[in-house]
Amino acid sequence: MQHRKRIPPAEAIQYLDSLLQDLHGQPESVTAANACGRVLAKSIVSDVSIPAFRRSMMDGFAVQAEDTSSADESSACTLRIVGTSMPGNGWTGNLQSGEAVRVMTGAPVPEAADAVVPFELTSTLPAGVRISSPIAAGKNVSEIGEDIRSGQQLLDAGRSLRPQDIGLLSATGCSEITVIRRPRIRLIITGSELLPAGTRPHGHRVADSNGPMLEALVSRDGGTSLFHGITPDDPDSIRELLEEGLRDKADVLLVSGGSSAGDEDFAPDLIAQLGELPVHGISMRPGAPAGIGRIGNCPVFLLPGNPVACLFAYDMFAARAVRQLGGRPQQWPYRPIESTLLKPLHSAIGRLDYARVRMSEEGIVPIAISGGSVLSSTTIADGFVLIPPETDRISAGDTARMWLYGG
Amino acid sequence: MQHRKRIPPAEAIQYLDSLLQDLHGQPESVTAANACGRVLAKSIVSDVSIPAFRRSMMDGFAVQAEDTSSADESSACTLRIVGTSMPGNGWTGNLQSGEAVRVMTGAPVPEAADAVVPFELTSTLPAGVRISSPIAAGKNVSEIGEDIRSGQQLLDAGRSLRPQDIGLLSATGCSEITVIRRPRIRLIITGSELLPAGTRPHGHRVADSNGPMLEALVSRDGGTSLFHGITPDDPDSIRELLEEGLRDKADVLLVSGGSSAGDEDFAPDLIAQLGELPVHGISMRPGAPAGIGRIGNCPVFLLPGNPVACLFAYDMFAARAVRQLGGRPQQWPYRPIESTLLKPLHSAIGRLDYARVRMSEEGIVPIAISGGSVLSSTTIADGFVLIPPETDRISAGDTARMWLYGG
Repeated sequence: MQHRKRIPPAEAIQYLDSLLQDLHGQPESVTAANACGRVLAKSIVSDVSIPAFRRSMMDGFAVQAEDTSSADESSACTLRIVGTSMPGNGWTGNLQSGEAVRVMTGAPVPEAADAVVPFELTSTLPAGVRISSPIAAGKNVSEIGEDIRSGQQLLDAGRSLRPQDIGLLSATGCSEITVIRRPRIRLIITGSELLPAGTRPHGHRVADSNGPMLEALVSRDGGTSLFHGITPDDPDSIRELLEEGLRDKADVLLVSGGSSAGDEDFAPDLIAQLGELPVHGISMRPGAPAGIGRIGNCPVFLLPGNPVACLFAYDMFAARAVRQLGGRPQQWPYRPIESTLLKPLHSAIGRLDYARVRMSEEGIVPIAISGGSVLSSTTIADGFVLIPPETDRISAGDTARMWLYGG
Repeated sequence: MQHRKRIPPAEAIQYLDSLLQDLHGQPESVTAANACGRVLAKSIVSDVSIPAFRRSMMDGFAVQAEDTSSADESSACTLRIVGTSMPGNGWTGNLQSGEAVRVMTGAPVPEAADAVVPFELTSTLPAGVRISSPIAAGKNVSEIGEDIRSGQQLLDAGRSLRPQDIGLLSATGCSEITVIRRPRIRLIITGSELLPAGTRPHGHRVADSNGPMLEALVSRDGGTSLFHGITPDDPDSIRELLEEGLRDKADVLLVSGGSSAGDEDFAPDLIAQLGELPVHGISMRPGAPAGIGRIGNCPVFLLPGNPVACLFAYDMFAARAVRQLGGRPQQWPYRPIESTLLKPLHSAIGRLDYARVRMSEEGIVPIAISGGSVLSSTTIADGFVLIPPETDRISAGDTARMWLYGG
């Protein structure tokens, strides 16, 4: 990074947002069973009413409420039982005054009836059903369209579907739902020293951690990873993977490793040749070697090989693109809380710092770490505090905002 | 429900917890790539150190710090460049005082060097590298085990794995991870009036909404649904499905519909015959016909056919079992907030009520609905407020706890 001026994070985001403003999520059709958690691409209007018929809300007797108007303990009314209405199998007769129809919850209420008296308020006699208190017209009857009217807008475009939404859509006869396609995120993990993730490290080689971590982050943000394994620090291989990513119609390219300006950092020059790389070197720690550019319309992110820097740069920049292309809000899925910082955090004016912290009963405790590249700092931590560029410290006793990793 | 005393929700949970106390999640092995969001069944101890060798944290020159101790602008030290150490391909020579080795980030630092001077603090001359300020011993060198020591406990049993955990495990050579198997939840959706989900409703028949909703809820809570389609209200069919669920080694049975005491409510008697059903009829609204029992060691939940009651009874009772059997905390995934209730909520002493509400700028607004069975009330709502059995109202102006549906 020796030959570049570092760019403020806010400017990096400004460039990113200018790239993203012309990009939109693409629609695809999925079955309702696969739609939970997906983002609606189009608002949904019901073309049916629910209920579609007058439906009993109780097990009881469908009656004409008027027949019960003067009923009381001393002078109960007794109605003749003329039939039974079952769910899916209604009574087809013509109810008259003085008559009642046994009706189960969910069954149609006969047309001439206007109330259902629950079983527990009745007793059955040889002569019929005895009702000893009046019932109001409409009681325990769901009217047509009470839940949903035909033509009603059920759910708005952009909504992330909840379990009950899936229930509602299923009830209205929606079997296919148009959601925003998961953005396709091509991962290019570079490093001649890397062994495939999960390989026991040996010699001077290390096992890849960024590939599996980025796959999990992309999935969390609603994207699909395209990852075909690590690649050595070799300009021809990296160029081939960038071009392959475009041929595969990736929506975003993530390049991890080789992002700096060292001897084996080929990706920056390649991206600049194939497209543009106006953001390279950002005032943040860790993550200074990160970069943002594009090849054609495809945003490209340079993520440092250092796994903590990779995580932070992904969350700061790439997550924003993945979420927006999937129709999701740009905000992090981390929950913020405000609490007292128990030990000071130091940074430098002009630099954004990512401080891993724990939560204690008393407040926020920074994690003492010797190096910024220590991935275990992010697994020991409960979350992080950002020290913004405008300040060089947050003092002990100050209120700080902590973002909870959760999970 | 006419012939039963309703059980307080707290007693229902007490019975449920007595069922659950002898049940535990079962382990299974998954690849790291599939482990994010899963719950660790066993604590993980690293059998490697990371870094496993002294690693450079910068692109620069590995030196003996002592050589730079008196360097300043007017009297810089110049060191002879004797080699290059690349990531995965270290320099194998023997560094002497007065010498420097070019080293890239991630590459091994020669044994006799104890600091890395970043390129930007050096200039390269024909005679070697010029360094004009002293560097401290240890600077920019990651020591062996700085991130992880061999034998160190990395992650505790019971942890829900985060993206960075997957990165850490991948880096230590873990390719298979022992997590708690997703509990298998058999769904039995009954109702002669039901059409398969997504069918356009017609006549007196309605399309199933509880099946797809429960599948989504079970998935949210970390379980796997076993659902083979709806079944009519017929005791032989329901008995066969209960027995089949046990043969399939389901961890939990969920029965939706036919849970009350009407003519076609066969499930309660069948469960009592095959096992026990001590909880049937609970003081809650909606959801009073819900029940909890067991067949053998398998918890069985009766969920009302009314979809709002089904959602509430699932969340109150079944979710607790699904989450615990999957090794997850029993708490809801809904986030609680406290705010001012803007209109009163009415209930009855002794009854737990589920009031759907919206969030406005000013506070919590109950949703005006005509019927408790209106599923759209849960899709219009931002969340819900519970009115506990001890009280019959929450007054306007009171602070209430609202649970956010999220999504």
